[in-house]
Amino acid sequence: MIDITLLGTAALVPLPDRALTAVTLTCAGHTVLFDCGEGTQSAARKAGVSLMKADLIALTHYHGDHIFGLPGLLQTMCCLGRTDPLYITGPAGLKEELAPILKLAGWTSYELKLITLPDEGLRLAELVNGWPWEAKLTPFSTEHRVPSQGYCFTLGRAGKFMPQKAKDLGVPMNQWGLLQKGQSVHLDGAVILPEQVLGEPRKGLKFVFSGDTTACPALTKAAEGADLLISEATYGENEQAGTAVDHGHMNFAQAALTASQARAKLLWLAHYSQMIEDPQEYLPNAAQIFENTVCGQDGMSVTLSFEKD
Amino acid sequence: MIDITLLGTAALVPLPDRALTAVTLTCAGHTVLFDCGEGTQSAARKAGVSLMKADLIALTHYHGDHIFGLPGLLQTMCCLGRTDPLYITGPAGLKEELAPILKLAGWTSYELKLITLPDEGLRLAELVNGWPWEAKLTPFSTEHRVPSQGYCFTLGRAGKFMPQKAKDLGVPMNQWGLLQKGQSVHLDGAVILPEQVLGEPRKGLKFVFSGDTTACPALTKAAEGADLLISEATYGENEQAGTAVDHGHMNFAQAALTASQARAKLLWLAHYSQMIEDPQEYLPNAAQIFENTVCGQDGMSVTLSFEKD
Repeated sequence: MIDITLLGTAALVPLPDRALTAVTLTCAGHTVLFDCGEGTQSAARKAGVSLMKADLIALTHYHGDHIFGLPGLLQTMCCLGRTDPLYITGPAGLKEELAPILKLAGWTSYELKLITLPDEGLRLAELVNGWPWEAKLTPFSTEHRVPSQGYCFTLGRAGKFMPQKAKDLGVPMNQWGLLQKGQSVHLDGAVILPEQVLGEPRKGLKFVFSGDTTACPALTKAAEGADLLISEATYGENEQAGTAVDHGHMNFAQAALTASQARAKLLWLAHYSQMIEDPQEYLPNAAQIFENTVCGQDGMSVTLSFEKD
Repeated sequence: MIDITLLGTAALVPLPDRALTAVTLTCAGHTVLFDCGEGTQSAARKAGVSLMKADLIALTHYHGDHIFGLPGLLQTMCCLGRTDPLYITGPAGLKEELAPILKLAGWTSYELKLITLPDEGLRLAELVNGWPWEAKLTPFSTEHRVPSQGYCFTLGRAGKFMPQKAKDLGVPMNQWGLLQKGQSVHLDGAVILPEQVLGEPRKGLKFVFSGDTTACPALTKAAEGADLLISEATYGENEQAGTAVDHGHMNFAQAALTASQARAKLLWLAHYSQMIEDPQEYLPNAAQIFENTVCGQDGMSVTLSFEKD
C-alpha cells in the first residue's frame, strides 16, 4: 500500500491556492518527499501529511521553485529535535547546488547525507530500516534545461505463500514471515529460498514522478504500466506544444500522450504555469488522448493498493 | 497616508493560516517590505498586496523565519522583468548573511543593492524618486540573540500653506507646490524657504516595527507616540515573561507595556509561537495593560491618515 499526496501544483511562482512543487510518498510508515518548493511545509500541514519523518528528499532538479522550501524544512526538522539521518538525492551537481541551502539551514541536530542513487535503483530498506524490502526507488534522466531526473518508485510483490510447501521443507512457522518477505532461511545447514515456498511473483505497485521535462523516451519507459504517473503539464493549449519543448516542459496533450504510450493506469497533471487559471478548462486536451487523466490539485491524495488475488 | 499590511504572524514554523513574518508599508505608490519569511509571496497575493514594486526590503535580523522567502521573491521579481534596483538593508552582517541567499537567487535582471541605514535615518526619496520628501526610515537596535534592529517609519507633515504669504513674496503659483513639499524656491537671486510660507509643522505619521526583541528602552523610545506599533508577542501567558526574556522575545503583556510606556496609539501583536492556537485567548493579558491592542492576523491592513486640520 502506498499513499501519494500532491502538495503543490504551481510552476515558478506560488499562488494562494497553488503551492510550488512537492509530492510525498508514504509506505509502511516511511516517507519520501519529491521536490520541496517554497511553502512545502505549509502545504503538508494543510494536507495533513507529516514531513518530519521523511527519510529521503528526492530532488528532480535545482530550479528555485523545486528546492527553496528546503532551508526552512531542514531548520524545522532541527527545531523539532530530529535525530534520524536525512538523505537527499538529486541529479548531477547535488553537492554544489545544495551548498548555499545547507549554509542557510545551518547546524542540524541530525545528519544530512547527500547521496546519488545508482542507475539500477536503490532498495530503500538498504538506506533506512523499516522500508519494505521490495520498495525500490530508481532515477531516470529527463530532458529539462538543466541536469534533471524523474523517479520511479516500485513496490514489488512476492508470489503467494504456500504453507504446505514450507511445512514439507520443515521450516518452523516462526520463520515463515522471513520467506514471505523474500528472505532466505537457514535450516540445519540447508538454505531455503523464498521461491521454494512462494508462487509466481505478483503484480506490484509503481509510481512515477516526472519532475520538469519535455516528453521523452526515458519518461515513457519509466512510466510503463505505472499505477500512477504524476507528470508536469506546464502549458494547457495544444498550440503550446512547441513552446513547451523549447522551455523543457510539456503541455497537457504531451503529458497525456506519454501516459498513453506508457500504458499507465492513472495520470495526474501538475506544475501548471500561472497563466492556467483553471486547469479543468484544458483537461479535454489531455483526456482525448488519455482518458484516465485527472487535473492535480494541491492536497490531492490517493492510496495505491495491491490487486486482490 | 500610509497603508500597512501584516502578511504573516507566525514565528519559527509556518502554519496553514499563519505565514512567517512579513509586513508591507506603502506610501505614495512606493513600498517597503519588512522581513520576508518563507511564504511571503503567497501571503502577499492573498492579501492583495504587490511586492513587485517594493523599493526596499528592511530585515530585522537573519533568522530563517524572517528571510527564507527572499530567494523565491528575488527570482520572481526577475521573472517578471524588474529593472528598478532593489535595496536590502539589515543589521550588522548583511553582506555575509545574504551571500547564500543571493547565490540561490542567481542572476537578476535588476541591481541588488545592500545598504546600511544611517543611525539618524534615511529619507527614502534620497534612495528612490517618488517617495515623499518627508518619508524617513530609521533603524534602532533591538535585543535579540543575534544582531537585530527594528524600524521606525515617519511621514512628516509640513505646516499649512499660506497662499497670501507666497503671493506677497512674489512666488509664481506654479512653484507653490515645491514650497508645500518642503523645497526652497529660487526667485530672481532670492531664496524663498518653505518656512516663510508654511505654518507650524503639523503632526505627521509614525509606524514602528519591532522585529524580534525583548522589551527594551530603544524600542519604547522608537515607538514614542507611534500611530501603529507592530510588536512581536511570541508568548501568550504572563508566566512566560522570563522565558520570553531568555529567548530574546516578549510575551503579550511585555509588548503591551512597551506600547503603553511609549504612549502609542495602536498596537498590533504578531510573531506568535505555534503553541498559541488562538491569540485572542491571550488578548486580555495585553489589553489590561494597553487597551488599544489588537491581535494581528495574516492579511490585516490599515490606512494611517493625517489628522484633520
